[in-house]
Amino acid sequence: MDEKEWDVYLSGEVHSNWREEIENATYKENLPVQFYSPVTDHEKSDNCGDKILGEESNKFWKDHKSAKINAIRTRTLIDEADIVIVRFGDKYKEWNAAFDAGYAAASGTPLIVLHHPDNTHALKEIDAAAYDVAETVEQVVNILKYVTSEQL
Amino acid sequence: MDEKEWDVYLSGEVHSNWREEIENATYKENLPVQFYSPVTDHEKSDNCGDKILGEESNKFWKDHKSAKINAIRTRTLIDEADIVIVRFGDKYKEWNAAFDAGYAAASGTPLIVLHHPDNTHALKEIDAAAYDVAETVEQVVNILKYVTSEQL
Amino acid sequence: MDEKEWDVYLSGEVHSNWREEIENATYKENLPVQFYSPVTDHEKSDNCGDKILGEESNKFWKDHKSAKINAIRTRTLIDEADIVIVRFGDKYKEWNAAFDAGYAAASGTPLIVLHHPDNTHALKEIDAAAYDVAETVEQVVNILKYVTSEQL
Amino acid sequence: MDEKEWDVYLSGEVHSNWREEIENATYKENLPVQFYSPVTDHEKSDNCGDKILGEESNKFWKDHKSAKINAIRTRTLIDEADIVIVRFGDKYKEWNAAFDAGYAAASGTPLIVLHHPDNTHALKEIDAAAYDVAETVEQVVNILKYVTSEQL
Amino acid sequence: MDEKEWDVYLSGEVHSNWREEIENATYKENLPVQFYSPVTDHEKSDNCGDKILGEESNKFWKDHKSAKINAIRTRTLIDEADIVIVRFGDKYKEWNAAFDAGYAAASGTPLIVLHHPDNTHALKEIDAAAYDVAETVEQVVNILKYVTSEQL
Amino acid sequence: MDEKEWDVYLSGEVHSNWREEIENATYKENLPVQFYSPVTDHEKSDNCGDKILGEESNKFWKDHKSAKINAIRTRTLIDEADIVIVRFGDKYKEWNAAFDAGYAAASGTPLIVLHHPDNTHALKEIDAAAYDVAETVEQVVNILKYVTSEQL
Amino acid sequence: MDEKEWDVYLSGEVHSNWREEIENATYKENLPVQFYSPVTDHEKSDNCGDKILGEESNKFWKDHKSAKINAIRTRTLIDEADIVIVRFGDKYKEWNAAFDAGYAAASGTPLIVLHHPDNTHALKEIDAAAYDVAETVEQVVNILKYVTSEQL
Amino acid sequence: MDEKEWDVYLSGEVHSNWREEIENATYKENLPVQFYSPVTDHEKSDNCGDKILGEESNKFWKDHKSAKINAIRTRTLIDEADIVIVRFGDKYKEWNAAFDAGYAAASGTPLIVLHHPDNTHALKEIDAAAYDVAETVEQVVNILKYVTSEQL
Repeated sequence: MDEKEWDVYLSGEVHSNWREEIENATYKENLPVQFYSPVTDHEKSDNCGDKILGEESNKFWKDHKSAKINAIRTRTLIDEADIVIVRFGDKYKEWNAAFDAGYAAASGTPLIVLHHPDNTHALKEIDAAAYDVAETVEQVVNILKYVTSEQL
Repeated sequence: MDEKEWDVYLSGEVHSNWREEIENATYKENLPVQFYSPVTDHEKSDNCGDKILGEESNKFWKDHKSAKINAIRTRTLIDEADIVIVRFGDKYKEWNAAFDAGYAAASGTPLIVLHHPDNTHALKEIDAAAYDVAETVEQVVNILKYVTSEQL
Repeated sequence: MDEKEWDVYLSGEVHSNWREEIENATYKENLPVQFYSPVTDHEKSDNCGDKILGEESNKFWKDHKSAKINAIRTRTLIDEADIVIVRFGDKYKEWNAAFDAGYAAASGTPLIVLHHPDNTHALKEIDAAAYDVAETVEQVVNILKYVTSEQL
Repeated sequence: MDEKEWDVYLSGEVHSNWREEIENATYKENLPVQFYSPVTDHEKSDNCGDKILGEESNKFWKDHKSAKINAIRTRTLIDEADIVIVRFGDKYKEWNAAFDAGYAAASGTPLIVLHHPDNTHALKEIDAAAYDVAETVEQVVNILKYVTSEQL
Repeated sequence: MDEKEWDVYLSGEVHSNWREEIENATYKENLPVQFYSPVTDHEKSDNCGDKILGEESNKFWKDHKSAKINAIRTRTLIDEADIVIVRFGDKYKEWNAAFDAGYAAASGTPLIVLHHPDNTHALKEIDAAAYDVAETVEQVVNILKYVTSEQL
Repeated sequence: MDEKEWDVYLSGEVHSNWREEIENATYKENLPVQFYSPVTDHEKSDNCGDKILGEESNKFWKDHKSAKINAIRTRTLIDEADIVIVRFGDKYKEWNAAFDAGYAAASGTPLIVLHHPDNTHALKEIDAAAYDVAETVEQVVNILKYVTSEQL
Repeated sequence: MDEKEWDVYLSGEVHSNWREEIENATYKENLPVQFYSPVTDHEKSDNCGDKILGEESNKFWKDHKSAKINAIRTRTLIDEADIVIVRFGDKYKEWNAAFDAGYAAASGTPLIVLHHPDNTHALKEIDAAAYDVAETVEQVVNILKYVTSEQL
Repeated sequence: MDEKEWDVYLSGEVHSNWREEIENATYKENLPVQFYSPVTDHEKSDNCGDKILGEESNKFWKDHKSAKINAIRTRTLIDEADIVIVRFGDKYKEWNAAFDAGYAAASGTPLIVLHHPDNTHALKEIDAAAYDVAETVEQVVNILKYVTSEQL
């Protein structure tokens, strides 16, 4: 049998290094996976609109311009992903993580959700749309290992 | 010119009567709009899985079964809507509101978001995907009046 | 809120009266549901090809012609359904029930599966694609009642 | 004329070596074909859910979790296939083979079915959705040889 | 069970009254079918471009303009049809009948082809794309009767 | 043959009464056509954003908000139209008319363009995407009469 | 500017060497074009069904089986083509060329038609669906040269 | 994280060297971007129809033939683009730039618009459909740098 190259988009929490953990573990295993993500530098992602297109005095439009520039990147990468993995952290509302999950679900792209069991009830609609719900990075890596390379 | 019947889906917050306010104001104006919503009775929506298909001891699967039954209703109604209106409240995380917004955006359905300006920064990605961002129910009703009936 | 008319397609087992049970229970509750089904008269569905287009000596082509005529009906009705319900019985292989389930899943149409728990392991891929897995007709009726009319 | 690389997904029976036979014969002919398949190690495919995400006491959910992980792989590979080949064996019900056939048919992907003539009547709806119905591995290889390389 | 209203598009030969025969037989049976067709008045369909938009000296553009006006009607009606029936006559090349068959096939709309067996070899690709191949109007009517109303 | 109800969207110039002329002529002929249009009151369409959602000091965002509200109406009506008719006048740039033409073309909706021959060269890409190019309102009415009712 | 690799499918007449002429001229110019075609060996394409899957006594089914095998190749290659070129010859009815044109049109794939002006009236619907209508192989090559490489 | 290759289509004004400026600046930064454009040689693009397919006496059809040949190139390249950038100049009406913007919007492809602020009011519908509105080439380059390479 031949082996497919998989494109995986990592959405959600930007305040921990879960992306690097997944990426490192996956590369160590030499899995046929490419990872993509939004711009995770909070400073850049909040201010790209003002920095590139000029300052806005109104905060709503400042946020709007930055969000629209970021959306070019995120929409395109989600559209091309084979798998979308969404991580919900505990500190922030992370509505955009939930937005990405809805976007992936409507597109028919397999969704893996990663969160602490404390959030199970609040995330039940999103968990129900997911193919798998993981609690740890290790579980996510093991799903990728099995799905892409038949190793358990 | 002829007049279209518009199907509008009201997603999000279930702890205030914003849906009834929009519905009443719209009917008073005699607008050509039909409203649809998820099951907003929290008790029912949390327990429909256990009640219909049998009790689960594991809380994750209890939530899962209820969420899947609710999803039949919500997915279908969002898929058929001409406009999706999503209300974010202040008390709860309402990740499923954000999920519905992402689902509507990926489906190309016009999205109106309704929330307090305090949440502007946290909701910037979702606002950027919306056609309009309103702060009050009255604004939403006026958008519907203008869009469906050319009245300002 | 307004109420949608729901189109429900009943696929699978033709050797019991489960369709009539669902239909009768649903009508008794006055639910906003329309039911559609394949031709369930086994004799007709097996012989329509020969009867209409002329006899085939070769059994493969006799089956083929009948199956193609039936497919005009079944594909169209599944394509238009809001919900597809698939019943697996115990006596026959019912590969065409599984085929319809796959067809509905690929089309993104919500799927409800109805079967005895003895078949859980053999049907696990199909159950995993379903929104709900029911064991009794009564459960299916209660799902329809809740999803279409918010009654529990 | 130029030559296309073809992606072929091999679905169905996991209790014989029909996949290897097709693969070996095709490679011997040096055909421009890549083969993909589900995880065919029964042990792994049944237990991946428990192994990766933790044990379930309830058998339904154990099956459900494994099936959902497997679905990430199978859906993606079927979605990307140019041709889906489905093998029905004699011993098991293989409803998931029929499910994959329905999924491929709804996606418009050309389908080749491989089964013993004894099953012709039971498989008539699926055969009718197929481009070709083969009885032997050799026939399947010859179809691939002709379709991809114009050799008869 | 409920009964669907079926939209049927009748494409192809315009030099015999096969459309009226199907329509009359179907109405006599009181079947739930609506029929649609191209403009079948040859004179009108050839000259509508010049008549409406002004005369062309160049014959290619005269044909082009008429064909484009006719295409608004035919494309829209085929796009909305549940079933497309294409009749090939013997006198003319009727390439546009074959074009409509290809259009319906690519759209996934069930196709019934009606022609004399003498044309079987020349029409083999189109017959292979059809759900059914009929030789007489009566057979077509019987297919419609069975498919829409379960009567054999 | 049965007769379809046609939905026609009238896009473009808002500074002459071409819409009313088409509508009146069509109703006089009793054609099965429903007409839809953007909000054509220039004052309303420019200021709906400020009036409904609050004043913007920045002119770009004032225009942006109004345009987004108008887009809910125009996108939805174009998406549902069977035919899109776009009128280019002489006084203004009417880039939004050209935008609507591109939108209709990408959606596969038949497009009729109405403009003075002086603009033929400047509009050549749009004319090439159109099914018909008319110079007068009378020609447009005659196309609708022929396409919907077979009358020449 | 960068240069795209173009995939071109050559459909239609199999009784002259027009494909080789286009291919040779294009390669001489070193254009970024890959060519694909159906199996053009008439003998093979008529008999592949019998040869691979066993002889049919009934001529209809013999043709049917061969046509279905050929369809795996032709549908896939047309689906992936950037441009479909269809050549109508004078000797045969070539309904399958017209079928391919309809298939390409419904898929939104740019279509170039190549035929003698004598057939203009009979081919007017297909010409109207085409982006260009050529009379000679040289014209087709020049279109490809211009479209892919900006050379006139 | 891995890096995607981005395909960017540059539509609109052909009377200044804005395309080269973007291309040069982007290559200097070594960004993972490929650029595509229409044929920008005005002479060629106006006359390709006559030059390749023979002279037309009627100016409408001369323009039509050229526009259709150009459309093969432009539609295909826009369909494959990850980002469409449309530049509106001041001298010409550039309706085809607006047409391309509408085409991209309907296809869901992220759109960046580049124009002088003087045109803000006239372009408000198109700006509202865009992800970003830039006034200078430098801003466009900075958007590409950020979106494709996370550099601000």
